[in-house]
Amino acid sequence: MQRSSKLPDSPKHLFPTWNEISPTKSATVSKSTTPRSKLGSEPRISFTWVDPEAKLPFWATQPKKDYVDVGPVIPIDTNEMRRWSFYRATIAEFMATMMFIYFGLSTIIGAGREAAESGGIGMVGVAWCFGGMIFVLVYCTSGISGGHLNPSVTFGLMVARKVTINRAFFYICAQMSGATCGAAIVKASNIYWDEFNGGCNAIHEGYSVGAGFIAEVMGTFLLMYTVLSATDPKQTARDSHVPA
Amino acid sequence: MQRSSKLPDSPKHLFPTWNEISPTKSATVSKSTTPRSKLGSEPRISFTWVDPEAKLPFWATQPKKDYVDVGPVIPIDTNEMRRWSFYRATIAEFMATMMFIYFGLSTIIGAGREAAESGGIGMVGVAWCFGGMIFVLVYCTSGISGGHLNPSVTFGLMVARKVTINRAFFYICAQMSGATCGAAIVKASNIYWDEFNGGCNAIHEGYSVGAGFIAEVMGTFLLMYTVLSATDPKQTARDSHVPA
Amino acid sequence: MQRSSKLPDSPKHLFPTWNEISPTKSATVSKSTTPRSKLGSEPRISFTWVDPEAKLPFWATQPKKDYVDVGPVIPIDTNEMRRWSFYRATIAEFMATMMFIYFGLSTIIGAGREAAESGGIGMVGVAWCFGGMIFVLVYCTSGISGGHLNPSVTFGLMVARKVTINRAFFYICAQMSGATCGAAIVKASNIYWDEFNGGCNAIHEGYSVGAGFIAEVMGTFLLMYTVLSATDPKQTARDSHVPA
Amino acid sequence: MQRSSKLPDSPKHLFPTWNEISPTKSATVSKSTTPRSKLGSEPRISFTWVDPEAKLPFWATQPKKDYVDVGPVIPIDTNEMRRWSFYRATIAEFMATMMFIYFGLSTIIGAGREAAESGGIGMVGVAWCFGGMIFVLVYCTSGISGGHLNPSVTFGLMVARKVTINRAFFYICAQMSGATCGAAIVKASNIYWDEFNGGCNAIHEGYSVGAGFIAEVMGTFLLMYTVLSATDPKQTARDSHVPA
Repeated sequence: MQRSSKLPDSPKHLFPTWNEISPTKSATVSKSTTPRSKLGSEPRISFTWVDPEAKLPFWATQPKKDYVDVGPVIPIDTNEMRRWSFYRATIAEFMATMMFIYFGLSTIIGAGREAAESGGIGMVGVAWCFGGMIFVLVYCTSGISGGHLNPSVTFGLMVARKVTINRAFFYICAQMSGATCGAAIVKASNIYWDEFNGGCNAIHEGYSVGAGFIAEVMGTFLLMYTVLSATDPKQTARDSHVPA
Repeated sequence: MQRSSKLPDSPKHLFPTWNEISPTKSATVSKSTTPRSKLGSEPRISFTWVDPEAKLPFWATQPKKDYVDVGPVIPIDTNEMRRWSFYRATIAEFMATMMFIYFGLSTIIGAGREAAESGGIGMVGVAWCFGGMIFVLVYCTSGISGGHLNPSVTFGLMVARKVTINRAFFYICAQMSGATCGAAIVKASNIYWDEFNGGCNAIHEGYSVGAGFIAEVMGTFLLMYTVLSATDPKQTARDSHVPA
Repeated sequence: MQRSSKLPDSPKHLFPTWNEISPTKSATVSKSTTPRSKLGSEPRISFTWVDPEAKLPFWATQPKKDYVDVGPVIPIDTNEMRRWSFYRATIAEFMATMMFIYFGLSTIIGAGREAAESGGIGMVGVAWCFGGMIFVLVYCTSGISGGHLNPSVTFGLMVARKVTINRAFFYICAQMSGATCGAAIVKASNIYWDEFNGGCNAIHEGYSVGAGFIAEVMGTFLLMYTVLSATDPKQTARDSHVPA
Repeated sequence: MQRSSKLPDSPKHLFPTWNEISPTKSATVSKSTTPRSKLGSEPRISFTWVDPEAKLPFWATQPKKDYVDVGPVIPIDTNEMRRWSFYRATIAEFMATMMFIYFGLSTIIGAGREAAESGGIGMVGVAWCFGGMIFVLVYCTSGISGGHLNPSVTFGLMVARKVTINRAFFYICAQMSGATCGAAIVKASNIYWDEFNGGCNAIHEGYSVGAGFIAEVMGTFLLMYTVLSATDPKQTARDSHVPA
């Protein structure tokens, strides 16, 4: 401990480092930052005196990644089910999916009715309704549940080991309940429900089932590609060579 | 003062902390940051020497929240009514609501006139006008009044105790005056005002009043959900488990 | 000066402050930061030792604004006309206005031609073309010239003393030359120029000149309101009470 | 080394500087930051003691640019072809271009079919499809390959010496293969392929080839202007005088 008592008296260099990703060489420093880092769960900048004469271990001299990959979650985490935030997230998924289906189906039926009367929002209007609703609802719930709103997103993130199996199960149940409730509200309040088949999708006349299947595969691929890109910690890292 | 004179000579650890949310253990440090923190109202990073050997009090060893919740406002704050910024905010609400109603009603009437002549912007165009105007006007006035532009938003934020009752009263008066002025300008300058009933909403033929009521409830719920999410200090916090 | 010479040897407190907006009390500190601050023109965080026992002057104990208002420019600045960036900005205004008018007029003529053939992008498509072009071109030129693209914006910013008179004169000349060149390219390459009157605006049948004047006043007011809000240093400041 | 041993005991000034762009005057400091800066490739804030009495060299007293211009790449870099990230980027270009062409051609054909049946998304819908797909796919691949998705962008960035010739060659090959695959999927699954000529562009009746050529020149100019503006390190710098 002679070294540690000397450190404060003669600091050589001082620079901020993420204490999650940078090795702290001095035992004194790491001892003292430990109680502090328990206070908050966020990475925080700490200033450590680094002795330049100290010999770095081999692994610390290798180039390091400039992002924090939290790694895959464990498949089943019963611990998170004891927390209120788990059920709050499930409720958020239920509410958001209910509103998404309510506004989506209402818009499809309205667009169909207006098209029958000539003049209306058309397919572009329906697309904007769905896109805008997803944008708003994911914005609102992203800090609560992650904003999946879709069993395919939840399933994909479960396969990618970003959410646990029990969380995925609860989310999918909440999404399906929410969608059922949303559709029920539309059915109860919209007299054009039967006429436009509840806003249900169908393969357009002339296309085969295979063409519809390919379109769904491509669309869901793009959806999950975007979701996984948006949640990728390497997205903002400079680990890869990014030209232009 | 023996401690304070020793501090600079033997700093143990130095890391940045939000002085609003982290306890400063050293009396000397907190005494000196007090006059400084009066100078600005924003949280600012301060560097404090933390003595690792000092015993932390019980409450400081608990996990802390990583966001600052300002807490509910007092119901009636007569103090803020003595400040110019209060009346500037009221004027901003008046101006923004006036412009919103002017452009909104003009667009509805224009869409109706064009639809009668065949070809026009239709419902999608009207929706873009309203959405774009809200976007622009909230952007302009958010730093002045908060950008409510709508008595329902002001009322909801008053119930959520984000604004005081007196501020809500002034805002709603300003919004109603502004809407009246905006409608008056349209009525004075647009010769199609009578033909299209001043751009007034109506329940479409075939829908019941109850269906319209449900649609308004759902829409206003979504509006307030978005507003409260956007102004939630927990929105960007990692307090809740955010999967994916 | 005995105190100032002692400061580096016994620093009491250390916290980061914007050296543009915070008073440095110690003569030693300000002497040393001066040569550094000449190196870069941006505000940068500097760490100053502040002696808590030192008495603050009266003006430093007042609440300070947390934004930097650069103040009005001088009316005529012949100095900036000797710099290459001045002429680069003028060229950027010319190029951007030329492209804006080229795409804008082409879209108006195309929308008119398609409307005559039934089916087309309509007014919504024209509005998106203008909005999207402004968005892209202001993004591209904002770092070069400020991205005015419009004599009314340049004139308004000149009146607000954000740009000098000589800069406004050069910008407006460049914008008018660019618009003329853009229109000339459309006229030379588009055979429907004469049929649709060069995409020129006109007051719709039935509206009076006064109604058109009011609409232009309101629209230009909104444009300048948005521009001045976006460039307002107080926009992100917490000087005003911002509820919700 | 007498100076360096004195530095910690009597720090004069301490402020954060980008160690990439600011000269470190003290030999001790630069010696110690060297091993650290090897650990990460990102610029990081380091705190250096700067002795105000030390004489600055001539070049350090000149105003410095506040941005980091990485400079032109070497024309051919065989070294990057040994890295996995190079081939990962090529694969990303292939996948993104394939999806872009699949959704783009499907939308064009669908818009044509709907127009024939009256009612449809029209040109505005096609424009939104292309714009939205580019937005999403560039977002997803920007951290992997740079998100070119277009031989003209790759060629332009090669000419601007932002990418090497070998990278441009691989990207263009991947883009063309991807576009071919995407078109093949549409042709195999969409029975309206022949009727609408595969969604192929054509010069509208009445326009000359020269007018189409000018339109393509202007559009590609705008595309590259935007891309080069977005990747310009001077974009966010205050090197140029930015009025308003």
